[in-house]
Amino acid sequence: MEEWLKDDERLDYLLAENLRIIQSPSVFSFSLDAVLLSKFVNVPHHKGKMVDLCSGNGVIPLFLSARTKGHITGVEIQPRLFDMAERSIRYNQLEGQIQMVLGDVKEIPQQLGIEKYDVVTCNPPYFLAHEASDRNISEHHAIARHELYLTLEEAIQSASRLLKQGGKAAFVHRPGRLLDIVTAMRANRLEPKRIQFVYPKEGKEANTLLIEGIKDGKPDLKILPPLYVYKEDNEYTAEVSELLYGKE
Amino acid sequence: MEEWLKDDERLDYLLAENLRIIQSPSVFSFSLDAVLLSKFVNVPHHKGKMVDLCSGNGVIPLFLSARTKGHITGVEIQPRLFDMAERSIRYNQLEGQIQMVLGDVKEIPQQLGIEKYDVVTCNPPYFLAHEASDRNISEHHAIARHELYLTLEEAIQSASRLLKQGGKAAFVHRPGRLLDIVTAMRANRLEPKRIQFVYPKEGKEANTLLIEGIKDGKPDLKILPPLYVYKEDNEYTAEVSELLYGKE
Repeated sequence: MEEWLKDDERLDYLLAENLRIIQSPSVFSFSLDAVLLSKFVNVPHHKGKMVDLCSGNGVIPLFLSARTKGHITGVEIQPRLFDMAERSIRYNQLEGQIQMVLGDVKEIPQQLGIEKYDVVTCNPPYFLAHEASDRNISEHHAIARHELYLTLEEAIQSASRLLKQGGKAAFVHRPGRLLDIVTAMRANRLEPKRIQFVYPKEGKEANTLLIEGIKDGKPDLKILPPLYVYKEDNEYTAEVSELLYGKE
Repeated sequence: MEEWLKDDERLDYLLAENLRIIQSPSVFSFSLDAVLLSKFVNVPHHKGKMVDLCSGNGVIPLFLSARTKGHITGVEIQPRLFDMAERSIRYNQLEGQIQMVLGDVKEIPQQLGIEKYDVVTCNPPYFLAHEASDRNISEHHAIARHELYLTLEEAIQSASRLLKQGGKAAFVHRPGRLLDIVTAMRANRLEPKRIQFVYPKEGKEANTLLIEGIKDGKPDLKILPPLYVYKEDNEYTAEVSELLYGKE
């Protein structure tokens, strides 16, 4: 096992998918939001070309590989995370389906091709660059969490450039940025079609937003049933438990 | 009783508030959406000046009168509905608190005063003028339901003009128009602050949107817990039942 891991990394299970993923508490661990996005997005089952922007340790490409036979390209700007993702893909023997690219999301459409893709996913940095509440975290976490190298608008613009007409872009973010997201999506020809709000538990305000748009789609927005993460007793709800651990 | 009623009108109970309201199946009956908006909007309890646009038979002013001691002006363009609202207000002896104005929402800020109000509510026509799926309905219903005399953007603009800085505007509409609403609100200095989606029952898509903004407010949007109308057995949920009929 040690040949696969560096420093304080560990090989965690993606239990619902019988996959393993390399993580590190000091560098990067995937979040529930990435899992939610992987399950929310509509993907073609048997073919298609997909891109995941801001891939981190590759969690979304790994989850997507269980939902589609299409090809998935993951884009990550941090060499340390890119390297973790590449090793996880090899460990799971998914090199034929998933390719990681080390690069800047802003430049990636030129590199990967304009209007060539069917689906783009992105779990972007959530916090504005000046929101320095956790300035003491590692540089890896800072880049992944804050808009230091990539703003929301830039992520949405790159997603749109990658997509064919009729292609789908799906994002996860904080509900407080809803208006910025939909404004930027429409400004980049991505018409919002499906939104799902995620609530930590019943009676609480939503803390996560899932949104999918179609390039040059017609206006017709659906608000999906809400998703709750925890039950009253602080255990995962059946829905989230199934996402994480698979069906009982 | 007959002295109060015309044609096929009846005097219905607003049970939760111990009020009565004149309705008519062929002219106008209030909807659950109006009740939801009356309960959703933040109102000052002891004073303040409020305006309800597109008042119909006055249901929102009547409900609001139970939540605030402030003064409420209802605006309705259809003389027949204006007349029903006036009679309901007199029947409930609320002439001191509620005043109806017969007029066009587009012109009403000039008449009532620019930037003089604390709260504006509006349950506007939902359907675009060309959506003629129910063209055979009465003219009264057509005007109340379709954007024949008033577009969404015009309603939002009038609401903003009536409001003081820091005043609140609250609207109810279909979720499919979310993007149009938030775009028009921001274009008219109304920053969306609270959204609540209403779902007919668990597992279904939302069919109603409640939204409140603050004039010249700072961006900070909250998505409130979802509201469900019906239980699995098609009875009202406890929450909606309480809105309509009061606490058991």
